[in-house]
Amino acid sequence: MGGSYDHAVTPEEFRAAGHALVDWIADYRTRVPTLRVQSQAVPGDISGKMPGSAPSTPQPFTSLLEDLDRVVVPGVTQVQHPMHFGWFPSNVSLASVLGDLASTGIGALGISWQSAPALTEVEEVVCAWMRDEVGLSGAWHGTIHDTASTACMVAMLLARERAGGHGQESGGLQALDQPLVVYTSSQAHSSVPKAVLLAGFGRGNLREIDVDPATHAMRPDALAAAIDEDAALGRIPAAVVASVGTTATTAIDPVAPIVAIAQAHDVWVHVDAAMAGSAMLLAEYRPLWDGVEGADSLSWNPHKWMGTALDTSLFYVRDVEHLVRVMSTSPSYLRSAADGAVTQYRDWGLPLGRRFRALKLWFHLHLDGLDAIRERIRRDIENARWLGERVEATPHWRVLAPVNLQTVCVRHEPPGVEGEALDRHTLAWTDAINRSGQAHLTAACVDGRWLTRISVGVEATHREHVARVWEMAQQAAGEH
Amino acid sequence: MGGSYDHAVTPEEFRAAGHALVDWIADYRTRVPTLRVQSQAVPGDISGKMPGSAPSTPQPFTSLLEDLDRVVVPGVTQVQHPMHFGWFPSNVSLASVLGDLASTGIGALGISWQSAPALTEVEEVVCAWMRDEVGLSGAWHGTIHDTASTACMVAMLLARERAGGHGQESGGLQALDQPLVVYTSSQAHSSVPKAVLLAGFGRGNLREIDVDPATHAMRPDALAAAIDEDAALGRIPAAVVASVGTTATTAIDPVAPIVAIAQAHDVWVHVDAAMAGSAMLLAEYRPLWDGVEGADSLSWNPHKWMGTALDTSLFYVRDVEHLVRVMSTSPSYLRSAADGAVTQYRDWGLPLGRRFRALKLWFHLHLDGLDAIRERIRRDIENARWLGERVEATPHWRVLAPVNLQTVCVRHEPPGVEGEALDRHTLAWTDAINRSGQAHLTAACVDGRWLTRISVGVEATHREHVARVWEMAQQAAGEH
Repeated sequence: MGGSYDHAVTPEEFRAAGHALVDWIADYRTRVPTLRVQSQAVPGDISGKMPGSAPSTPQPFTSLLEDLDRVVVPGVTQVQHPMHFGWFPSNVSLASVLGDLASTGIGALGISWQSAPALTEVEEVVCAWMRDEVGLSGAWHGTIHDTASTACMVAMLLARERAGGHGQESGGLQALDQPLVVYTSSQAHSSVPKAVLLAGFGRGNLREIDVDPATHAMRPDALAAAIDEDAALGRIPAAVVASVGTTATTAIDPVAPIVAIAQAHDVWVHVDAAMAGSAMLLAEYRPLWDGVEGADSLSWNPHKWMGTALDTSLFYVRDVEHLVRVMSTSPSYLRSAADGAVTQYRDWGLPLGRRFRALKLWFHLHLDGLDAIRERIRRDIENARWLGERVEATPHWRVLAPVNLQTVCVRHEPPGVEGEALDRHTLAWTDAINRSGQAHLTAACVDGRWLTRISVGVEATHREHVARVWEMAQQAAGEH
Repeated sequence: MGGSYDHAVTPEEFRAAGHALVDWIADYRTRVPTLRVQSQAVPGDISGKMPGSAPSTPQPFTSLLEDLDRVVVPGVTQVQHPMHFGWFPSNVSLASVLGDLASTGIGALGISWQSAPALTEVEEVVCAWMRDEVGLSGAWHGTIHDTASTACMVAMLLARERAGGHGQESGGLQALDQPLVVYTSSQAHSSVPKAVLLAGFGRGNLREIDVDPATHAMRPDALAAAIDEDAALGRIPAAVVASVGTTATTAIDPVAPIVAIAQAHDVWVHVDAAMAGSAMLLAEYRPLWDGVEGADSLSWNPHKWMGTALDTSLFYVRDVEHLVRVMSTSPSYLRSAADGAVTQYRDWGLPLGRRFRALKLWFHLHLDGLDAIRERIRRDIENARWLGERVEATPHWRVLAPVNLQTVCVRHEPPGVEGEALDRHTLAWTDAINRSGQAHLTAACVDGRWLTRISVGVEATHREHVARVWEMAQQAAGEH
């Protein structure tokens, strides 16, 4: 058999199929605005359309294109749709699609600097570019993780090992006499408690600090009190996670006072700016994370609002030596003469192998240009404020959190409708819009009551779409 | 400014650029065999070719194609090259490149079943297909992680929480009175100790079990003795990681006796079959992991030998309820009416957001077909055995480990050259070949001595290429 194999897709077959797929994607992106926003699929719809086993023999490419239309598209909530206001912007710019295609097509292997020097060095360079563009100092060193969840997990491991005297090199967390404690706000993203639990701290050592009732931002005085109490009881305050832009309401924890409190106790500060990092491309919004230079790590996701295809989550640290000490591994088969002189990104995160993710950012920045990216983000914030003003000015409607960025948290409060009845009303009109397929919104539970988030920021969303969703909200709330 | 933004790459611009990029990739893949295998780049070469900051205004797409040729290609070790025998096969089939392009182009958001039902259900289906194709029972449930490192980390967290009584829900690992202990072989991949340390067990609670000197496989008697000793001292044996195909020599730990020992102590068994999983597509090799049905979790990477583009690491568990209990998170803004009836893959791993990775596997299986994939893997094993026989039959050459799969571990041992001089000789001739750019091999240190791994399995590698690298090895070793 040796030498006889030649059945895989060849470069020439790839050329023909690739052209057809590029055309399919261009056509699909063109018709997204005509599609229902929320998928109508019910559980089992999609899997029921697939065969019970994989094919033994090659299938024609046209059948796969048909499957994309028949199986995949109806099973996707269209987050590139201009009427998508749910969750958060998850823009996938076509520029970054090209960069990702280049990455996969080249098929480089990222397990060490030597295996693909360009994969490492381009990542270093684009991480430095992005750092500079959001006004961070050169003291920060970056890498690309898959998501901010992973970034937070790594930050918790770095905090754990700093506070625990690198116990993982000996008896581990289980050998510590005094518990390590982590602090975040009650409005932090679910990935924060998840990372704290998975890193081994235990839920009993996670303090969810009170927030200001108006801004939903962490109260520094409550943080200081909690740290003082733990320290007095012999526990070791290890980390604070500050959210710059919480998921539900885009609340901004005050970084400067948090850093001041943390530094007094040698506590690691991780800044989660997954959404809001993109706003920091605009100099006028950087006061929102004033004090960030005193933090130890931070993350932001160009794969959200900025529009570099997932997975592009930037993670920056100041102390690379500490990072590498905690996360490193150095088996013999990966050693090369270049070790020591180069960055080995395998020692900056969990996975050994990595994709050439930096090409997505490189292509996105070069083909769209930062001026246009900035203009779009500024547009989105202005559209959100415009919407917020209209909601505020309308009887029986409330804006329930400051419009710090691009999310407007609203509630229709008809006279006499309160408590659980109000929750039912909120969920009913929101769901009615979603079921209509004409727009997509997400409800969220904040302070025990449901509200509706109108998250502006899809690349295709213009003022007219924001105006339309506001009309739809008023109509739907009036009918339910 | 609201509404005025329209500067991003449009679908029609994407169509033109996409065609050009597909052509570039097809041409690149065609000329890979003419390129040097190992990149000649020295540290700073690549970053030195890039500007100091990102562009403000859009750049022409042609300049990015030129950058791919000027900056990227010279900075990549060509792992798709037929003369690449280094590390491990890292095939990126062109079929899977198309699937990945479809995934990124559609731009679905994977944060819940509801956000993209197809993303979840296609992943469920292809994971079931792959499970069936390697002969695993329906008791296994799968997902796609980025790498086997992450899969091992999740497995260690599952083991930690089972042995520790779900301590993460209370005081965490730091509250346990008795240390939890993990066992693996001294030949296990570096990701195993890394996962053990990061999961908080501590290096002092990691036992590296002795291997058989001939096979480099874990000795079950040594494992049993270590577990018994720890248990007698009041420690809690928590997990065993069995390697089916170690990285250095593709040694096969005996899964059946390991499982028997582990089950007697209620110890979690994770099977790391990152490389070898692809061989299990061939029924005749499944005796190599006999006993696997008794394990608790296992991982294998279609992104290695099988050729689905990275990141496609399959992770299977038997107890989904335990998995979800340990890894879950359920914030209000992600809840939907479908919860409970569907799989929420965010609760199966670390990241919340995920790419539509299943499309890579779907396209790969449909366009290449499993018959051809199996034929290729069989070809590679036969080529490796053919090479091993020639090396064994040649004076002063040795094969240093059983050729279980597609890796041949060799050493040229000229008369009178021993110890460190032999190491210098091994590294010298291996390095000479790599520097020539004509082929690529990796040296590894096993039992304190260096050897050279000839890892067969690139999609483009036929018998003639294996014969050629063997000629090159003999010539290089004769000259150094």
